[in-house]
Amino acid sequence: MEYKPLSGREFPRFSGIKTFFRLPHVDVKSDYDIGLVGVPFDGGVSYRPGARFAPTKIREASSLGRGFHWTHQLNFFEHLKVADIGDCPVVPISLEKTYKKIETFFTQLMKDKKRFISFGGDHSTTLPILKSASKVYGKPLRVIHFDAHLDTYPPAWGCEYHHGSFLRHAVDESYVDPKKSMQIGIRGPLTGEDDLNFVKKNKLNVTTVDDIRVGGLEKFIAKLPKFDNTPTYISFDIDCLDPAYAPGTGTPVVGGLTTYETQRILRALKIPNLIGADIVEVSPPYDPTDITALAAMDTAFEILCLMAKA
Amino acid sequence: MEYKPLSGREFPRFSGIKTFFRLPHVDVKSDYDIGLVGVPFDGGVSYRPGARFAPTKIREASSLGRGFHWTHQLNFFEHLKVADIGDCPVVPISLEKTYKKIETFFTQLMKDKKRFISFGGDHSTTLPILKSASKVYGKPLRVIHFDAHLDTYPPAWGCEYHHGSFLRHAVDESYVDPKKSMQIGIRGPLTGEDDLNFVKKNKLNVTTVDDIRVGGLEKFIAKLPKFDNTPTYISFDIDCLDPAYAPGTGTPVVGGLTTYETQRILRALKIPNLIGADIVEVSPPYDPTDITALAAMDTAFEILCLMAKA
Amino acid sequence: MEYKPLSGREFPRFSGIKTFFRLPHVDVKSDYDIGLVGVPFDGGVSYRPGARFAPTKIREASSLGRGFHWTHQLNFFEHLKVADIGDCPVVPISLEKTYKKIETFFTQLMKDKKRFISFGGDHSTTLPILKSASKVYGKPLRVIHFDAHLDTYPPAWGCEYHHGSFLRHAVDESYVDPKKSMQIGIRGPLTGEDDLNFVKKNKLNVTTVDDIRVGGLEKFIAKLPKFDNTPTYISFDIDCLDPAYAPGTGTPVVGGLTTYETQRILRALKIPNLIGADIVEVSPPYDPTDITALAAMDTAFEILCLMAKA
Amino acid sequence: MEYKPLSGREFPRFSGIKTFFRLPHVDVKSDYDIGLVGVPFDGGVSYRPGARFAPTKIREASSLGRGFHWTHQLNFFEHLKVADIGDCPVVPISLEKTYKKIETFFTQLMKDKKRFISFGGDHSTTLPILKSASKVYGKPLRVIHFDAHLDTYPPAWGCEYHHGSFLRHAVDESYVDPKKSMQIGIRGPLTGEDDLNFVKKNKLNVTTVDDIRVGGLEKFIAKLPKFDNTPTYISFDIDCLDPAYAPGTGTPVVGGLTTYETQRILRALKIPNLIGADIVEVSPPYDPTDITALAAMDTAFEILCLMAKA
Amino acid sequence: MEYKPLSGREFPRFSGIKTFFRLPHVDVKSDYDIGLVGVPFDGGVSYRPGARFAPTKIREASSLGRGFHWTHQLNFFEHLKVADIGDCPVVPISLEKTYKKIETFFTQLMKDKKRFISFGGDHSTTLPILKSASKVYGKPLRVIHFDAHLDTYPPAWGCEYHHGSFLRHAVDESYVDPKKSMQIGIRGPLTGEDDLNFVKKNKLNVTTVDDIRVGGLEKFIAKLPKFDNTPTYISFDIDCLDPAYAPGTGTPVVGGLTTYETQRILRALKIPNLIGADIVEVSPPYDPTDITALAAMDTAFEILCLMAKA
Amino acid sequence: MEYKPLSGREFPRFSGIKTFFRLPHVDVKSDYDIGLVGVPFDGGVSYRPGARFAPTKIREASSLGRGFHWTHQLNFFEHLKVADIGDCPVVPISLEKTYKKIETFFTQLMKDKKRFISFGGDHSTTLPILKSASKVYGKPLRVIHFDAHLDTYPPAWGCEYHHGSFLRHAVDESYVDPKKSMQIGIRGPLTGEDDLNFVKKNKLNVTTVDDIRVGGLEKFIAKLPKFDNTPTYISFDIDCLDPAYAPGTGTPVVGGLTTYETQRILRALKIPNLIGADIVEVSPPYDPTDITALAAMDTAFEILCLMAKA
Repeated sequence: MEYKPLSGREFPRFSGIKTFFRLPHVDVKSDYDIGLVGVPFDGGVSYRPGARFAPTKIREASSLGRGFHWTHQLNFFEHLKVADIGDCPVVPISLEKTYKKIETFFTQLMKDKKRFISFGGDHSTTLPILKSASKVYGKPLRVIHFDAHLDTYPPAWGCEYHHGSFLRHAVDESYVDPKKSMQIGIRGPLTGEDDLNFVKKNKLNVTTVDDIRVGGLEKFIAKLPKFDNTPTYISFDIDCLDPAYAPGTGTPVVGGLTTYETQRILRALKIPNLIGADIVEVSPPYDPTDITALAAMDTAFEILCLMAKA
Repeated sequence: MEYKPLSGREFPRFSGIKTFFRLPHVDVKSDYDIGLVGVPFDGGVSYRPGARFAPTKIREASSLGRGFHWTHQLNFFEHLKVADIGDCPVVPISLEKTYKKIETFFTQLMKDKKRFISFGGDHSTTLPILKSASKVYGKPLRVIHFDAHLDTYPPAWGCEYHHGSFLRHAVDESYVDPKKSMQIGIRGPLTGEDDLNFVKKNKLNVTTVDDIRVGGLEKFIAKLPKFDNTPTYISFDIDCLDPAYAPGTGTPVVGGLTTYETQRILRALKIPNLIGADIVEVSPPYDPTDITALAAMDTAFEILCLMAKA
Repeated sequence: MEYKPLSGREFPRFSGIKTFFRLPHVDVKSDYDIGLVGVPFDGGVSYRPGARFAPTKIREASSLGRGFHWTHQLNFFEHLKVADIGDCPVVPISLEKTYKKIETFFTQLMKDKKRFISFGGDHSTTLPILKSASKVYGKPLRVIHFDAHLDTYPPAWGCEYHHGSFLRHAVDESYVDPKKSMQIGIRGPLTGEDDLNFVKKNKLNVTTVDDIRVGGLEKFIAKLPKFDNTPTYISFDIDCLDPAYAPGTGTPVVGGLTTYETQRILRALKIPNLIGADIVEVSPPYDPTDITALAAMDTAFEILCLMAKA
Repeated sequence: MEYKPLSGREFPRFSGIKTFFRLPHVDVKSDYDIGLVGVPFDGGVSYRPGARFAPTKIREASSLGRGFHWTHQLNFFEHLKVADIGDCPVVPISLEKTYKKIETFFTQLMKDKKRFISFGGDHSTTLPILKSASKVYGKPLRVIHFDAHLDTYPPAWGCEYHHGSFLRHAVDESYVDPKKSMQIGIRGPLTGEDDLNFVKKNKLNVTTVDDIRVGGLEKFIAKLPKFDNTPTYISFDIDCLDPAYAPGTGTPVVGGLTTYETQRILRALKIPNLIGADIVEVSPPYDPTDITALAAMDTAFEILCLMAKA
Repeated sequence: MEYKPLSGREFPRFSGIKTFFRLPHVDVKSDYDIGLVGVPFDGGVSYRPGARFAPTKIREASSLGRGFHWTHQLNFFEHLKVADIGDCPVVPISLEKTYKKIETFFTQLMKDKKRFISFGGDHSTTLPILKSASKVYGKPLRVIHFDAHLDTYPPAWGCEYHHGSFLRHAVDESYVDPKKSMQIGIRGPLTGEDDLNFVKKNKLNVTTVDDIRVGGLEKFIAKLPKFDNTPTYISFDIDCLDPAYAPGTGTPVVGGLTTYETQRILRALKIPNLIGADIVEVSPPYDPTDITALAAMDTAFEILCLMAKA
Repeated sequence: MEYKPLSGREFPRFSGIKTFFRLPHVDVKSDYDIGLVGVPFDGGVSYRPGARFAPTKIREASSLGRGFHWTHQLNFFEHLKVADIGDCPVVPISLEKTYKKIETFFTQLMKDKKRFISFGGDHSTTLPILKSASKVYGKPLRVIHFDAHLDTYPPAWGCEYHHGSFLRHAVDESYVDPKKSMQIGIRGPLTGEDDLNFVKKNKLNVTTVDDIRVGGLEKFIAKLPKFDNTPTYISFDIDCLDPAYAPGTGTPVVGGLTTYETQRILRALKIPNLIGADIVEVSPPYDPTDITALAAMDTAFEILCLMAKA
């Protein structure tokens, strides 16, 4: 099996069956290194739904994807066997049933020694992936969490699990080691001052937009921590970006990052043991020009190059 | 309390807090006759979500509403005390919890002798209303069901309850008497021939688009059944309309009805005991020019005039 | 001067400066027969504005226009000298000042023996045109008025003149002879029964959608009145069409006509003395696929062929 | 190989890699009966482009497809082995090169005894398919041509071949027998009277919207011709539909057919030797609510059932 | 009366009657501190209308609002009694009549010792508010004016008062003290050099985008003036933001500010006597993803926190 | 002939026939200095088409244009005779035929000593203009090329000429001197490392987004080269801008420039011999709020001021 994308110079990029980066759609048991997988579930969202269509739309947008990274000076297609492994089964009307299916799917995937990028879906889909990962890897993970929101919020409408509480549960249920983790792009407003209690108590490294901009991007990048060999996961909520750059999302917050900033930060990360990643909260019904899907695709490209480089 | 709408000739229709038909927003315990209520839940939908925003959008569209019906020669504002009673509580990420809240809300409403129009939400919201109604009224109801789909479909993804199975459950759980009920606007395609077993077995009066068009609308109307005093409920799925008339819906089906046809059919119904109605499956994210919300508003107007006339 | 459109087989229809039907843009004093003129004013509208952009958008949509009419078997470009004479001056923030400018412009135009189609703008722009016409022609006009609304409504917000009262004033100020006039496409709801008083008192021939559909279109057409030589004006409010066919308008009303119906009715009109026409209430911001502008263009084509035939 | 669609009751319809009707994507040499194939070329279009994205969008819309036809009482999935065979190679910037690729692809396909539905692309893609078919089948074909336009127009901008001239060439180059063929949904305006010369000279059976509506749909259907065993091809230009039903197209024309009308006509066709079909001129950038893609999908369903029935 | 917003953790943010920040809708005579009020008038606009729908859309967008400000470390809901007091009466087709209604409304409001944020409407609505304020407070005000445009422009189309001349009149009619005021976000192009005469003559402190960016945001903020106790008003024209951040406005100008920049500037303002503010020129018809309304909501949040802090 | 724009204070900017900057539409042989011309061809595009509509849309957007430049302190309308000279003839379905027409048109234009701004169209339209210019001026040109892409890419689908290869051909065919030229805004990803071979081999001065941002905009501007008297051409591909600022383009790439950055760079250019410019790849179907067209218009304004200043 050759894990090469359909050539855009042979077959126009608007043609063909849509898979992530025009890569082969293979059986989950094939011999690829990195599986690109959709998790089309938006049943945990509190405001604008639609993320269930994100895998389809990002597959289409990724027709414009290329493999060679100018800064890293490498072509990820040449270093890694990357494949589209289709969508994880979900149950659109039950978060509980979906959690079980996600857990089963990703547990097996990681047992098979695969790394992956999961394309959500809303941010509630991250929790069962983290649970699976911490079990397979036998320890709490490091999470590098790009987001506008802390996602450590309390239950809502009587429900513990929703798209704004994944990190609270991941920490409380010991899937994630908060002291080794960091958050990037966070900004207000908050519901109340006590929204900060959880991150303070758990010593989460919260990086706000101010932290990135006041001193300037170059300084911020220069001071990024050196990461050890702890199994590390990147969770990229597209709403870390400003709505100008990512209007197609469920709970947009103004005053956010630019795609250039997230590109530069991603490029600067040195992660010896990056086991997987997700890109969540892309909502195509609110993305009339597809620029949010495009940003998601580019973020996947940056992460794939991190994986290729490691 | 005067149940009169804000005058469009005094306050421009684009101004003011948005309530259904610019009517007063009152406490659910007030002395109105007909409560207009939102049920903003789309957690039972199988394809395009967004119906959670329907009550908000229909409130806005109903700013263009008026009260006098040319055919019926009456002004519903003068015959009925109609009010906006806000939204029924829902839990966006749990159909089960939402069902309980809907049941509680509508049971109390009907115990208080109120009639109502419920603005969904997806079609799964109809079932707990029917359950409440059959309990309060002490018998199975007649349902006049406008839809493209039979909504008698089997479980999906291991879930009994979803937006395509409300009528199956309503019949099986004895909230609805199928022999007294009818369906209008139904059309294919179907998943299989056995999709028809349920309606055949239960002798549901299924009226397809062909049944309305082949002989012509006037003949169809002339042959509408005379209804007895059985408590009757109208469930109007906006997708009974053709997507040209109602693009903003979750599972559109071409070859559907026009708004003129549903207006004429609604006007011709003679229902001695109309206890309530719903208008469901309006999905504003797919309704860029608001014509679907407008059709929903007009349908509510037709139903309110039926209630005023009775 | 040759009044021929730019050929679509020589210059692609998307190319070139946009004028109505790709016709020459000429000075108002040139020797054309029929002037096509924009009146980009929407300061009289009660709900959705945007008709100020209609002349621009209809000019663009009319790039798709052709001249040969299949039923009439004539090419209007060959029978008439038709030209784009630009836009009538308007004052966007003053209805009074705009009325004076419209009156001046159209009075001169008709004194110069020109016939015309005016592309509004909202329906308030029709009144000063009718005023000018009745003065130049020395008598009240016949108006054939396509609309969802009667436009005989009372003052609103303390203002006599607005887009819903043009016909009341035209009759009251004797620019229009109501007994010789007719309305087509009218439908409810109304604010109250007394909305009908004006048309009853003045014996306006009101034709509703029911009047057209219950007996069928062919019968309706067969019974259209024979018109005498009274100077006649067609005022075509695009909202006579159903919102499915014309979403881009200020106050859409469901249950309306199809473009096929208005085409057939326009084709059947026999008007010996058609002095001018307008097409109003096209609102491009609410017309994402330009189908409303296209309907306006086609209506102009039908009217131009009526003029060519006469 | 099982040619069954992915079940919507097992895998939600918004999930999974998008293929036509959720059918398997197979190699063109597999043992299917009917190949569904994209031809994503819009380089022959005269006004709004975008049809290059139609195969992708119709694949997505066909997620909502089902197999059982209520009128025909059959499930096409059970009678035929239908598969998605991907896209025919095209060269976006060269009509000539694309024609060669289409000809090669479809000639081989038909030599392999496959029937097919081609999803364009603009209408210029039909000509090389007809050429291939007439060569493989050894005689001129019958074409049943749904369209707003005659498509027998002269060269434009010095180019013989474009999306409005396919039928002229197909007749002149003897791929199609005009006397055995028919056109449905045609309407004006035309550029000139001589636009009709070709169809008159060649005795093409042109059916206009008037021909369908004046006498009524039932009569039109009753008088449809009985077709003999001549190899027959259906070319369905989505602009035969009214822009209300199919806004997403390149050169929309008002006054068109409804999806109900085309459904009924398609259902009534009795074609003993239906060798293939195309659905062309769907332009997703002008289809914000996807209703045009949905109409295309439903048309494919009707044609597949015709094929299953034959 | 408790001036608390509806909780998003109890009632989903998409549910309920829409008021600003989900706050109670109260009578204008109630005991709140800060009144949030709509002024839905766009009759003074020179290009794209639609701001009449801004109060409705911002009410909806403010469902996502929260109260706790990370930098200020306060929750405005806890420091201030804030309420939605509905919309100021307007006359959509008369700027003169609207000015009187605005003047009456705001004069009374300020006489009742209320502070407020007015949600326009176009920028012409600011003038009568400034007039009322200067009269009630007995002296010319300081205005902190965020805008792309100077709004000191001459009459247009024979009209003194329009959305581009409010500040000229406010200075000339002595409602505003230009020497105490400042403008932020101004940029070209201008109609002519003399557009600058007014600000030069009146010594207005004009801050352009260059003034903010060339030296960097931190320096700009550090040099912001210290304001004395003069009654101060913030007028925030959303078009101070770049069209990437605020496409939904009437006269967008590229090269503008980011929401982060306006957030930082607003946070840095120290205004001892902030009597009111407005946020104007949001035009929902040009805001398909609601990001402009979201920016307006966030700006209101920043201003409310300034009020709470003071 | 007076080359002055229609006054926005006399005629509202939404009124009138649309020409670039509301300037007179004149015959190509008139006595203007700078011709503004559309080249509505998108037949060379590899992904999203639609640029054929750019001249029409930019004409409309340029209604908001003004003439006085704050930094340069000049009004280009007063220094130059600028006119709209309509559209260059094109053949939408043939790149070869279009190239000949472009070459003929621009060769004559330059022989007539005109300077110009060409509004594409896709980037393939630049090549024949460069060819014409190098021939008329008798030497290879300097190109200042704003773009996300290098446009030095190899043939695609067997075609040498397409929108991504114009610069390769311009250099190889000696229309452009690469050593005197520069590229601005370039960024990855690339298809492969060898995409850089051409620019390396030809010593093109490639400036990436990193080159502009890492040291800061002011430093970048300060280091811009001094240009000699070589005939110089600016080719501005709108996709040099980030998709947040220019979503309406054919092949958007995230991580791009802001309009403020391109304004500042353009303002800083000192070009003694600027013979012409183009602005390409604006695709209106993907620009729902017209901000891309607005950016194109503003870019033309900056270039016109450079021409006026020189």
